[in-house]
Order: sequence, then structure tokens, then C-alpha cells
Amino acid sequence: MRILLILACLMLPLLGSCQYQSNWDSIDSRPLPAWYDEAKFGIFMHWGVYSVPSFFSEWFWDRWQGDPPYPSVVNFMKENFRPGFTYADFGPMFTAEFFDPNAWADILEASGANYVVLTSKHHEGFTMWPSNVSWNWNAKDVGPKRDLVGELAAAVRSRTKIHFGLYYSLYEWFHPLFLKDEANGFQTKVYRDQVMMPQIMDIVNSYKPDIVWADGAHGPDSYWNSTEFLAWLYNESPVKDHVVVNDRWYWPGSSCNHGGFYTCGDRYDPKKLQSHKWENAMTVDMRSWGYVRTTPLSGIFDIHGLIQKLVRTISCGGNLLLNIGPTHDGRIVPIFEERLRQMGSWLKVNGEGVYGSIPWRKQNDTVNPDVWYTTTKKSDAVYAFLLKWPQNNTVYIDAPIAEQNTNVTMLGYGQPLKWEMGPSYQGMNIMLPFLNPSQTTCRWAWVLKLRNVF
Amino acid sequence: MRILLILACLMLPLLGSCQYQSNWDSIDSRPLPAWYDEAKFGIFMHWGVYSVPSFFSEWFWDRWQGDPPYPSVVNFMKENFRPGFTYADFGPMFTAEFFDPNAWADILEASGANYVVLTSKHHEGFTMWPSNVSWNWNAKDVGPKRDLVGELAAAVRSRTKIHFGLYYSLYEWFHPLFLKDEANGFQTKVYRDQVMMPQIMDIVNSYKPDIVWADGAHGPDSYWNSTEFLAWLYNESPVKDHVVVNDRWYWPGSSCNHGGFYTCGDRYDPKKLQSHKWENAMTVDMRSWGYVRTTPLSGIFDIHGLIQKLVRTISCGGNLLLNIGPTHDGRIVPIFEERLRQMGSWLKVNGEGVYGSIPWRKQNDTVNPDVWYTTTKKSDAVYAFLLKWPQNNTVYIDAPIAEQNTNVTMLGYGQPLKWEMGPSYQGMNIMLPFLNPSQTTCRWAWVLKLRNVF
Amino acid sequence: MRILLILACLMLPLLGSCQYQSNWDSIDSRPLPAWYDEAKFGIFMHWGVYSVPSFFSEWFWDRWQGDPPYPSVVNFMKENFRPGFTYADFGPMFTAEFFDPNAWADILEASGANYVVLTSKHHEGFTMWPSNVSWNWNAKDVGPKRDLVGELAAAVRSRTKIHFGLYYSLYEWFHPLFLKDEANGFQTKVYRDQVMMPQIMDIVNSYKPDIVWADGAHGPDSYWNSTEFLAWLYNESPVKDHVVVNDRWYWPGSSCNHGGFYTCGDRYDPKKLQSHKWENAMTVDMRSWGYVRTTPLSGIFDIHGLIQKLVRTISCGGNLLLNIGPTHDGRIVPIFEERLRQMGSWLKVNGEGVYGSIPWRKQNDTVNPDVWYTTTKKSDAVYAFLLKWPQNNTVYIDAPIAEQNTNVTMLGYGQPLKWEMGPSYQGMNIMLPFLNPSQTTCRWAWVLKLRNVF
Amino acid sequence: MRILLILACLMLPLLGSCQYQSNWDSIDSRPLPAWYDEAKFGIFMHWGVYSVPSFFSEWFWDRWQGDPPYPSVVNFMKENFRPGFTYADFGPMFTAEFFDPNAWADILEASGANYVVLTSKHHEGFTMWPSNVSWNWNAKDVGPKRDLVGELAAAVRSRTKIHFGLYYSLYEWFHPLFLKDEANGFQTKVYRDQVMMPQIMDIVNSYKPDIVWADGAHGPDSYWNSTEFLAWLYNESPVKDHVVVNDRWYWPGSSCNHGGFYTCGDRYDPKKLQSHKWENAMTVDMRSWGYVRTTPLSGIFDIHGLIQKLVRTISCGGNLLLNIGPTHDGRIVPIFEERLRQMGSWLKVNGEGVYGSIPWRKQNDTVNPDVWYTTTKKSDAVYAFLLKWPQNNTVYIDAPIAEQNTNVTMLGYGQPLKWEMGPSYQGMNIMLPFLNPSQTTCRWAWVLKLRNVF
Repeated sequence: MRILLILACLMLPLLGSCQYQSNWDSIDSRPLPAWYDEAKFGIFMHWGVYSVPSFFSEWFWDRWQGDPPYPSVVNFMKENFRPGFTYADFGPMFTAEFFDPNAWADILEASGANYVVLTSKHHEGFTMWPSNVSWNWNAKDVGPKRDLVGELAAAVRSRTKIHFGLYYSLYEWFHPLFLKDEANGFQTKVYRDQVMMPQIMDIVNSYKPDIVWADGAHGPDSYWNSTEFLAWLYNESPVKDHVVVNDRWYWPGSSCNHGGFYTCGDRYDPKKLQSHKWENAMTVDMRSWGYVRTTPLSGIFDIHGLIQKLVRTISCGGNLLLNIGPTHDGRIVPIFEERLRQMGSWLKVNGEGVYGSIPWRKQNDTVNPDVWYTTTKKSDAVYAFLLKWPQNNTVYIDAPIAEQNTNVTMLGYGQPLKWEMGPSYQGMNIMLPFLNPSQTTCRWAWVLKLRNVF
Repeated sequence: MRILLILACLMLPLLGSCQYQSNWDSIDSRPLPAWYDEAKFGIFMHWGVYSVPSFFSEWFWDRWQGDPPYPSVVNFMKENFRPGFTYADFGPMFTAEFFDPNAWADILEASGANYVVLTSKHHEGFTMWPSNVSWNWNAKDVGPKRDLVGELAAAVRSRTKIHFGLYYSLYEWFHPLFLKDEANGFQTKVYRDQVMMPQIMDIVNSYKPDIVWADGAHGPDSYWNSTEFLAWLYNESPVKDHVVVNDRWYWPGSSCNHGGFYTCGDRYDPKKLQSHKWENAMTVDMRSWGYVRTTPLSGIFDIHGLIQKLVRTISCGGNLLLNIGPTHDGRIVPIFEERLRQMGSWLKVNGEGVYGSIPWRKQNDTVNPDVWYTTTKKSDAVYAFLLKWPQNNTVYIDAPIAEQNTNVTMLGYGQPLKWEMGPSYQGMNIMLPFLNPSQTTCRWAWVLKLRNVF
Repeated sequence: MRILLILACLMLPLLGSCQYQSNWDSIDSRPLPAWYDEAKFGIFMHWGVYSVPSFFSEWFWDRWQGDPPYPSVVNFMKENFRPGFTYADFGPMFTAEFFDPNAWADILEASGANYVVLTSKHHEGFTMWPSNVSWNWNAKDVGPKRDLVGELAAAVRSRTKIHFGLYYSLYEWFHPLFLKDEANGFQTKVYRDQVMMPQIMDIVNSYKPDIVWADGAHGPDSYWNSTEFLAWLYNESPVKDHVVVNDRWYWPGSSCNHGGFYTCGDRYDPKKLQSHKWENAMTVDMRSWGYVRTTPLSGIFDIHGLIQKLVRTISCGGNLLLNIGPTHDGRIVPIFEERLRQMGSWLKVNGEGVYGSIPWRKQNDTVNPDVWYTTTKKSDAVYAFLLKWPQNNTVYIDAPIAEQNTNVTMLGYGQPLKWEMGPSYQGMNIMLPFLNPSQTTCRWAWVLKLRNVF
Repeated sequence: MRILLILACLMLPLLGSCQYQSNWDSIDSRPLPAWYDEAKFGIFMHWGVYSVPSFFSEWFWDRWQGDPPYPSVVNFMKENFRPGFTYADFGPMFTAEFFDPNAWADILEASGANYVVLTSKHHEGFTMWPSNVSWNWNAKDVGPKRDLVGELAAAVRSRTKIHFGLYYSLYEWFHPLFLKDEANGFQTKVYRDQVMMPQIMDIVNSYKPDIVWADGAHGPDSYWNSTEFLAWLYNESPVKDHVVVNDRWYWPGSSCNHGGFYTCGDRYDPKKLQSHKWENAMTVDMRSWGYVRTTPLSGIFDIHGLIQKLVRTISCGGNLLLNIGPTHDGRIVPIFEERLRQMGSWLKVNGEGVYGSIPWRKQNDTVNPDVWYTTTKKSDAVYAFLLKWPQNNTVYIDAPIAEQNTNVTMLGYGQPLKWEMGPSYQGMNIMLPFLNPSQTTCRWAWVLKLRNVF
């Protein structure tokens, strides 16, 4: 394939079909399709065989049998399963009998998210679609006996306008072909050629994802040679025009450096404006991406915390990809549904300052650290997000420079607010309305819309 | 036993040990121990083998194999289990591996409840303690291999001041000895004598419950002959001085008629003052007492609804017994923990008007249906519970007759409130404070404390 | 019941309905129904939940969790099952999906046996019929979901002339009510009255067994009070005229002492004539009564050994009750089927000397220890069983006193054999025929029929 | 690899390392290593995941879910397993907890066999060794968690002189890569290159089998291109000098045509001398190669039948490969152990006429169809196998031409036998000895050793 592609690119440069070559300079030169930055908020879903033990985290298998094993996971297995029980034995217990993709789509839509990213395969190697190079270790052959990726894609696309993306782990902790390549110093490429490449192309061709969210890029650039895949993705694939990818394509060296938007590390939250489009992928369960049964309420972010993350992220130019883990039987548990619906109810009122916004010249107010800003592409308004309501109902924000015809409103509240110029012609004192407990349109955080400020 | 008891009562009347005889007149004459009415709020827990399928409700077995079977339950079994799978086969899957009675006790305490009632045995017959007349069908022999009743009792008593009560189902849907007695027109009493009586006395002697909450009294008074048990409970048992019982001792005829406090039907909510102490036993999951995996967020009461039930119940002289269903693996799921902690946070501020209160001369305000009342035993205050905050921050309540030195405060808010006499010397217009969103001490419902009103 | 029975017996002695009283003198005075002695050969079947682990023996549970535990059994559980796995968890795995009672009946018939004894309940307490005092621990509620006793009884009776008997264990290792009675020094009788007595009467009334084969009589006569049951069995039960029982009714003291035929200990093989009818209950698997998967061929009696046991037993006045253990899925494994069919093929030729025979004045030949004798009731023939074929084709037997018209034949061989008087007018030298390998009518042991000997 | 091999062969012809080329003319030209023909008798073992359902046959999966499905197998699954149960779900139940390779080796040795062939992989694709191209579908990852091939190889080699061979199925019924190649008219070779070729070379390199017994060659010669493998096997592999292969390398066309010894079809039994070395692969269970629980005794060959097959086979120049199926828990059931030990006991006496023999000029006696012949390589004796003992102890055999110094003995019987010349100087009448039932050295079939016959 590689040779054909290169030949094609050498021969047909004028046709425009080969504008991207299989090298990072070329790959990185592609502009990010606009929809992604405008989407601002997505939902991440980690679902797989780890949802069966639902203990510790989605890294369960590695923590149990990797190096070093974690005592808590080892003990969990010892105390609850027969000797000789293997991770593969969890496969048949991944039943998904209550999985209703339409119900999931409805919850996703209610959350106010504009995209969803589902794990098509995590490091355990279990594919959530019927991959023919993962026989007897995929959701069609074992457990659900359904094409989980396909079903969710269809439901999301038929019921919502949400973009559908797929997470894909390049490596697998325990795949013997990968381990052999690794043991060979990545000089052999059997796993890459016979497993990884066929799979990642399969999901693109079969499900036409709007996002390819790579992970588990354990190995050098020379091994994964992802530029070849990305060149194909950008030049020839059925999603070449609107697909977006992240930055985890080899390791170390790729994160925050190459690819599409940057994710850098998990839960990346720089609190400063970034020069490159980035994403904060974080979790409603504070510790785990996969569903963990034992997480108590204190281990789950409350809605204030989640909105704070969202606000801080978009102010600094990022997108928020908020993760929940479905259960082995196919449910989104009520506490997650509640958080998603709370997000949606807040965004319904305040989405104007979120969706389609861009960072302003200031992100966080110098004087008032509980205030973050965005603006519009046309610069016709600045949005100030208040994470705390001031005791005295008056908020001072230092960053905007007001002028006479400056106008202040609060999203979800009809009337203009009174304000006063701050000292030295800088900053504003804004009189907030008296909102009594019946006026619940705004809760958890409030957005002031400033027009004619600089 | 019966003969000995009667003899003892004939011989020793002066000693005061036999004040209650085995008849309803005598049993009903016992005053309810004071702690129960003062407690006002308890938590009910339905936990058993039905927590394993966790489908439909705790009536799963009956709906599956009773008469008539429910198609949804029959299909669930057909689609997910092998032919020949029996309800007893769920027993080994009731694992309770995450059951931490101390963690439960802490959540119960945080809820503001003053008592807890655990199902020691539901209609399925599975005993949550090691009953020797339920061999191989109890939590010590099968599944958890633990004395669940004993462990929770110990934790609750060592960590909290919460009263510990036990639910006990007199009948069992499918116990062959019960079915035979029933088929004999209840003329034989083998099940009662060999199963029910030994069990109910066993739980009293072993766990010394503060409440014996009977249920499943399917059969006539002449069959259950519960007065014998109650006479023993009141005269001789280790809990004779403080134990409280409910009213489900035979059927039909006992509910709302005989025993201790009245529960009448499930979710009993008369909305009027009752002449006899009563209890509203209801569920956080709107439909089921046992844990049901598939209940979506929309099937779970929000905190507003729960507080409304509590307020209405205590105004009318009842106690609220709020049910949650733990999981087969021993967890209280986060959405239930959240509701209980929300209740606790509200009660922390407003408990003064709840605990130890008594009904006032009016329960619900005639003019303002969102207002309910309680008062104190000393009548030195009336508490008006506002379920809605008025748009204009002023509430009119019609019931109280104010006078000059009438004083109005709001629980959790320091300063006295302004008020005006209503028209015709009746009712009051009360100016509520401006509470901004930072002042979260009061949420969901607000309690006005009125002193010097009539 | 007891009082009624005694009254009836006091009042109605002349009516003949109460000839047996509830004491051993009376019980032991009953003559053994003739069919039993004539039957000579029966098949014993140990089948129960122990057939699931199928390891060690039918005492699996006791060896695992009794006192002391056996390390091999403890380790088997540790290595192959999850912690917390209980014996009751084996119940659902007792599936019996291949149990075809007609096929079993055909094999039983082919074996030449005249009776079969099935374990209706072994010490584990699991009842193979739907006992209403063993709820959720019987074959109808758990596992097979079939009335195994009833199905086999019906098949045996409809297809064969084999007598159908039931084994029943009085005690249960782990029944909490029994353990409590035992801990009370057998002064309480809750288990006996509520479990044992109802069960043993239930199987008699429901299945009308020709044999009640008691076992597990761990406890004193005063506890079990089996004479009450036996008086009812002999006087009033539906099988009163032809039922036969064994001798294990209390312990110690009953075995070899009271009841019907004597079994004394397991595998009782006195090798001498007994004054009381007895039974040698022994196993094809040398070690276990229940099916044990791991028994190698060397642990299974060959047909020579089995025929030797049969011959020795009937010569001394006993019956042979030969045990096989069916599998958890309802099969008689081929090696057992082969042994039974081999027995049957031998008995087809040689049954004349077995069925209906009685012991002779000598059992084992003094000079030739490989020869055993029986005779007929009419004393018109003596049967000499040769367990070994003499190298020189001539056998000397010392016991018979021959005379001129003494006639010798070999069962299955048409012509009379030549013989000579032994020295001193005692004993006979018998010339055996030349049987070549094609003449397979007689194999494994050969029966000489002597007429006109003394 | 191919290119390197060809290059090596072109460059190094004189070194003798490349005598075989990758074409059938060259492959077929290799002489069969002598040990194989001398071995005469081998044991075949079909062991795999099909041993778990142990129903119908080792073709269980195909009969269940292939085209067309077999109703009996479909119903078995419906009646005994939950909906959605997959064949892969049987994997964890393949426990092999009782597998003791030393005990197996001892039984194999006792059978008198000189080689054993174990299924390393059957059509189900489950590899009995840790194949890295069958991840999570092999005995090390799933079920036994042991290298079953390696353990048996080691035990056989350390305890016996038995040759160790491996069966390997080229195709897999349901491997998606194979199905895709097949759907592509075998024009793509992904399965062959990524699964089959790596596996078959892996087993040769890892276990150094003396036999590679190919099967499942569903596909044309151009697809499997097995000559490449065989050239490598014969030229370079670690077993190149003594390895033997069979004839199932593509289909149709290969069987009875190309490769090493011919197996033609299953249970091939031509009853005539063959010009090419061949093997009769047949089963002790008359119907199934894998263990089938439900096979009754009547479905299992008795020892007479097996010896008849052996005799007939070797007379006609074949080897007998007698199959037994071990159980899912790792046992050889007693009925199979008995048959193997019976074979061994017969071969101990009569092996002289079997091992190392060659066909004689006649195979089956024209006049006496129950007599078959072999001779020695040196032609110094002819062995006549009598399958039936003549009623009159005299046997007439027509084929040998005797002379004066012709000498007749019977294996296991010390003295020379009397004989007479047949009519017309052809044939012999042989007087058999009188063997009484104590003389058990010869049973089931008898071997006459004729010296100085023609």
C-alpha cells in the first residue's frame, strides 16, 4: 500500500488528491476542520471488558498481571475468583443486555455535547466492533454479540447532530505479537502490519468517524509510522475532509507536538492560552475512565467542579472531553446521567458564551480569579464567566476596558445590569440582579455578556 | 411456649411482667415508645437475592414464576439465562463483596435519619441472617457467607445513635410448607410453627431490634396468631421496653387497625392529620424497593420531591421511612448516596422543625397549598415549611394568627424577618430575605419559625 | 400420630392391624418377606450433589468442611473454585440433562439384578425428590428440576420386574436443626420431628419402596425412635406386606442387631454362614460410592472380582448390593455399564445356582478354597462355584459326599461330566470339559451342579 | 523466507541441504523414514474445546453454527445454555485440572503403541500450545493455562520410547481471515500467511514432532502451497531426518496422492494390499473422535473389534492409528484405558507378528476369511492371525505352502503344534492346543508362527 501511495503522490500532484505526504511536516500542515473548535464540549466513553470487573480502573488487567502487579487488584481477584481465572474469562460476562443506543444518544444530546468519542479498542485489545484480526476477542464473537461501535454510531447519527468519534489504542498490553515486536526493539513490525494497521483502517472505512483519537502509542515513530495512516486518512479516506485527530501517534515525542489537536497528558488543564488547539480529556469519576463500581459519591465530581473545568478549558482555547464509563450490562448509571443532564441544563442557558466562542485577550481575570473570559469570532461581545456569586451581589472584574455605551447582561436574565467604571479607567463593577431561589435559570456559574468593551 | 406464658400471666399479674395478653385489645393498649415519634425520619433498605437480577423489582420471583407471570420478567429470564435456571441459582451470585457496614452506617448518619429498617427476610424467604430453619437459603450458607443483619446492626450501633429495626415477611411466596397450610385453608399451621415463629423470635433475641416491621401477612388472624408473639415481645423479650412494631400482622384486617404505628398501604400519604401514629414508607426509586439496575434518572425522585414528602408526612403526624435498595455486591449506589446526603444537608439546617416536632392545629395552609406546619411539644413555636419560594419574595400564609410580639425567623438565616398582619386579623405576609446563590444554607425548601402565633 | 397409633393398637389387637408395636422386640419379630432372600443380587446407586465435584467420594462435603478437613479435598476446592464457593453452589450444576430413566432401567435389567436401591437423600441432605421440608435443597427446586426418585421408580416398574428400594440418610452432616439437637445431647428432637420423620414417611407414601435402606443413624435409639416409624411401616403403610428394611436405625447398637436384614458395616463380607439374613453392600469403584471422576481403571473392580464377591456372599447367606455412582449429568459411565452387563451375561448362564438358592451345609470347600457352595430349597442339587479353572482341567472338591447315582453337570455346558470318588469316601475329583476359547458361555467362574450328593 | 530458501537451494546444491524442492514431484520422492512402518500401531488423541460440550462429536461447533446446523446440536444448546452463549464461552470451562501427562504416557506405553498423535489444533482453531497468532484462543491464555502440547511431549519422551506426533488443522471453520480468503476464491492468502504458516512452523520448531499429521486442507494447492512448508520440513527443520507426514495437504486432490503415508479418508480400511504406505485412522468410540459423554457401551468397540482392525490393517501394509478423546478435565476415561490396556496385553504376547512385520504375498486367507497374514523382512517366518477359534480346535489355512521341515508354533504357547499338509500340496490343517480358561496368555485373537513355509 505504501508504495502505491507514494507512486500515486509522485504522479498526481496536480490533482490535489495527495496534498499530504507521509511525514510530520506535511501531516501537521493540515488545518484543523472548523467544526471541532466550535464544538467545544464532547463526551468520552470508556467501555470494554474492564467494565466487567469494574474495579480499580480500565487498567485493571495491567494492574493485575502487568509489571508490577498492584496488590489491591491481585487481592480482588484472589478473593473473588477461582484460581486460573483469566482476563479473557471476563469476556462472556460483558453482556450489554441493557444497551439501548437510542437512549444513550438521547442522554448525550441532553448533555449539550457536540461530539462523542467511544473506545473502539482499549489497551486490552478487545474490539468493540467485529474485527477480523481480533477473532474471539471482540464484541460480536464474545459477550454482547453485537457491533457496539456500529450501533452507537447509527443511533447518534439518526437522532442527533453530535459528531461521532472513535478512540483506538495502537498497542495492546498483552498481545503476543506486539510483545514480540517490542522485545525485538521494534525492529519487527508484525503486530503493526497484521493487527494495528488493518484495524485502524477498518474502523475508518466502516464507521467513518469524525475523530480518530489515538492512544497507547507505546513505541517509536519508526515503528508505528502513523504518518502513513494519516496521509491516507487525509488524502483518501471517506472522512478525509472533516476528520480530526489528536496527537498520540508515537511515544515519546508525539504528544503536544504532532497530529491534530493536542491532548498532551490525560486531564490536561494548562490554565493558560495555548498556541495550538487542545483538548482537556477528563473524567466525571475522579480516578477512573472505565466504570468502577466502588467509587463513592465523594469520588465523583459535582456539577460545580465540572462547569469550572469547562469554563477554564474553553477560556484557554481548549475543548472539554468529559468521560463517563458505561457498565458491563450496557447502562449509563444515574449519577452520570444526572451530571450530563446538569451540564446540558446549564449549557442551554449559557451555551452562547461557549459554543463557537474563541479565547479573549485575557483568560482569567487578574484581580478576580473566579472569572474567566471568552469572546466571539466577530469580537462583538465578551463573556465573563463567574464561578462564584459574590456575597454582596456586586462583582469587580478588572480585565475589560469599558466605555460609555458598554452594555452588560447576564445570560438567561432578561434585563441589562448596572455597572460602574473601575478605578483608573480600567475594570468594571457590575451590580448583579437579585435572583431568588425560584429563579433557577442560572445555577452553578453565571455568564455576563459585555458588549462594547475592549 | 404458649401455655407457659398464659400460666405465667395468670400467676404473676402483680409483678407487672405480663401486662399484655395475647389479644388485640391488650396488644393495642400499649403506648408507643416515645423515641419513635420523635425520630420522624428513617431509612428503609430492601436487600436480598432479588438484588442479583435487579430487574423489575423485589417481587421479581413472583412476577417470573407466580400467577400470573409477567411477560417482561419471563422474557428477561428467557433472553439472559439458561433454561432450567432457578431463582435459587441467583443465591451464589449474591456476593456482597463490597459490603462495608461502617460505610453504610456513615451514609445513614449523614442522611439525618434516626432509624434504619433492614429487610431481614423478604417474601422470597432468603434470610439475611443465619436462620437454622432456612438452611442453605440464607446469607451465611449461600452467597455472602456473612451475617448481614448482625454486621449492619453492630456498625450502626457502634458508630451512630440511629435506632436499628428489622423488616420481616411473615409469609413466603413459594415456601412449600406455607403453600400447604394455605391450601389447607390455613387450618394447618406447620409453616407458622416451624418457620415463621422460630425466625421472628430468633431475630428479636439475636439482634434486639428497636423496630419489628412485619409484612407479607397473607393469611387470617387465626393463622398467624401474632398476638402471641407480640405479647411475648412486649412482656418478656429483650427489647420489651422500647421496641416498636407496625400494623401488618394478618390480612386482611390488620393494616391501619392493629399493632403499633400504622403503615396502611405502601407509600401511604393521607395528606391529613391522622388520629393514630403512622408511617409513610416510600422509595427513592419511584417504582421499586429492591435495587433495579435499569431505572433511569427520570425514575428516581429528586431532592425536591423527597423533601416535599417528608414535610407533608410529618405535618400530618407521620414518620417518613425512605427506602433505598443496595446492590448484590453490597453497595449503595452514588445516586442514592447523593439523595441521602442532600436530605442530611437540608435537615442539618431545618431539623429543628422536624425532629421532635408535633402536628399543629393546621397541617396545610388553606390559602397557600405549598406551606405545611408543625409545632413543638411545648407549643412555643410554629414551623411553616415553604415548598416553593415566591417569585416576589413575599409569602402569605393564612393559618397563623399573629399578634404584636410575633417573631419570624428563617432556619439557617440569622436575622428576624419583616412581616405584616394579613387582612381581617388572620394570616401573615412575610417578607423573605434576599438570598443570593452564594447563600446556600437553605435550599429546596425553607422553614419559617413563628413565635407567639396561635 | 404416636398417640393415635398406640391407642389403635391397644383397642384393635384382634383386628390384626397392629401386630407390630413400637419396640424392637416386636419389630424384630416380623419375618422377612421372602422375595428379598430370593433376589440375591441388587444394584445400589449413590447419586446426589456430590456427583458434581465427583472428587474423593460422596463424603466430599464432610471431608471439605467437616472436622477434620481432609487436605486433598480442601486443596481441590482452593485450586479450582473461587473463595466463598459453598457446597450449596454445586446444586445448580447438578443438571442431569442426560438422565434417561428408561435407559437406566434397561441396564439394570441387563445386569441380572432383582432389586435396585437409590439414594433418596444422602448425608448432604439434598433430597432427590421434591421434599417440602427441604425447600431449595432438592432435585425439583435446584439443579435437575425433576423428581428423580419418581422418574426412576416409574421406569423400573414399567419396564422390568426389578424391586425398587430407597436409601435414606437419617441424619445430615450440616443441618442446623440436627446439629442443635446433637449439641443438646439429643434431648431436643426438632430435626427428627420436623425433617426426618416427615421425609421418611413421605418417600414411603409417595414412592412405595420395596426396601427402606436407612443410614446415617448417628444418634441414640431414644432420639431417632425408629420403632415408631417401623411399626407404622409394617402395620399401616402402603408397603406393609412386602417392604424390607435394613439394620441402621440408631447408632451405636442397631447395626447387626435390629431391623430387617443386616448390613453391619459397609462392604460387610463375613466369609462364614450368618444366622440372620444379611447383605454385602459394596462398590464397583473400589473406594467410593458416589461417582469419582479421577478413579483410574486400577481402582475399579474387574468382573472376576465382582463375581467372586457375589459367589462368596450368597454362599454365606447374604445378598450382594453392588453400587455404581451415576454422573451429575445423569449418565451411567461405560465402564460401569460394562461391569453390569458382564454380571448379567454370567448370571444368564449361572443364575440357576444363584437366584432362589440357599446356603448349603458347607460354604467354602475346606480343601479347595476357590470353591463355594449353594443348594436349593428342595435340596435336590448342590451348586459348586469354581472361581479358578484348574490347570489340569480336573478339580477336587472335598465337601460333597457322593454316591453311585451322583450326577455332575456344568451350567451352560450340555453334557454330564466324569467324576471319581475322593479318597476315604469323601470328596470328588471332577473332570472338567475341554472348553476352547470359542465356547464362551462360561467365563470368569463356572458352576458345577451336583445332584445326589450329601 | 521463500526467496531465501530458493536462493539457498540454487547456490548450495552440492551441499545436500536442499535436496527437496517446493513441488510435489520432489516432495513425494522422499523415502519414508523406516521407523514409521515398523511402528505399526499408534494412538490418536482428539482433545480441544469440543471436549467441554462433549456432545455429538469434535465437529460440535460446525454442527451448531455451521451450514446447515444440525437440529440435535442446536437443541442441546438451546436447552442447556443461555441465549447468547458462544462457542468461545466454552473456553474457560476447558479446565484440564486432572491432566497428568505422566499418567497418560504410562497408559500410552501400556497400550503397546509406538507413536502418539495429539491434535495441536483442530478446525475450531483453539491451539493446544501458546500460539502467538491465536491470542486468547489457546490453552495457555484460556482454560487450562498450560502448554498441553509441550507437557505431553515432555512426558512421553522422558518416560517412553513412543514417537510423538502432532495433528494440525490447516483451515479453521470460522476464522474470519480464512473465510475472507475463501470468499475471495483463495486469491488472497492472509490467513495462510499470518496464521497457518506461522503456526505449523512454530509447532515443528517448538515440539520437534516425529509426525506432522495435516488435516482440514479445505482449499486448492495454490492456496495452501504446502510444498513450501514440506521442503523446509525435509531440508532444514530440526526434524528433517526422521519426520513423517500424511497426505492431507490440499483439497481435493492431495489425499491418497501426495505427501508421506496415505490416510485417504477417515477410517480407511481397504482390506487389500496397498502399493503406498498407508494408515487406518479410526476411533474406539464408533462415531466420534472427540470425547462424547453420551456414548453408551454399545457405541464403543470391544477389544475383539479393535484387534480385528489392527490385524487387517497391518496385513495390508497399513498402520493403525487408534483414537481416543480425553475429557475437558484432562482424563482418559476408564473404558478407553481398559481398551488400550487390553490392546497392550494382547500385543505383549503377539507383538512379534506385528511390530516390524511386513505384508506377505497373501493378506487374507482365501478359504478361511478369519485368517490374515504378515511376514518378516527376512522372510524367515509367516504369521497367521486367527480372529476366531475353530469349534473343533483345528484350523485350515489355504495360503501357505508347507514342506517337510515346516514348523508351527502359537505365540505365547511354548510347544510346536501338529499340522498336516492340505490337499493338493497346498494349505495346512493345524491342530490347535487345548487352552483351558486358565491359560489366558492368548485371548481375542491368536497368532500362528509358521517357519519354512512359502
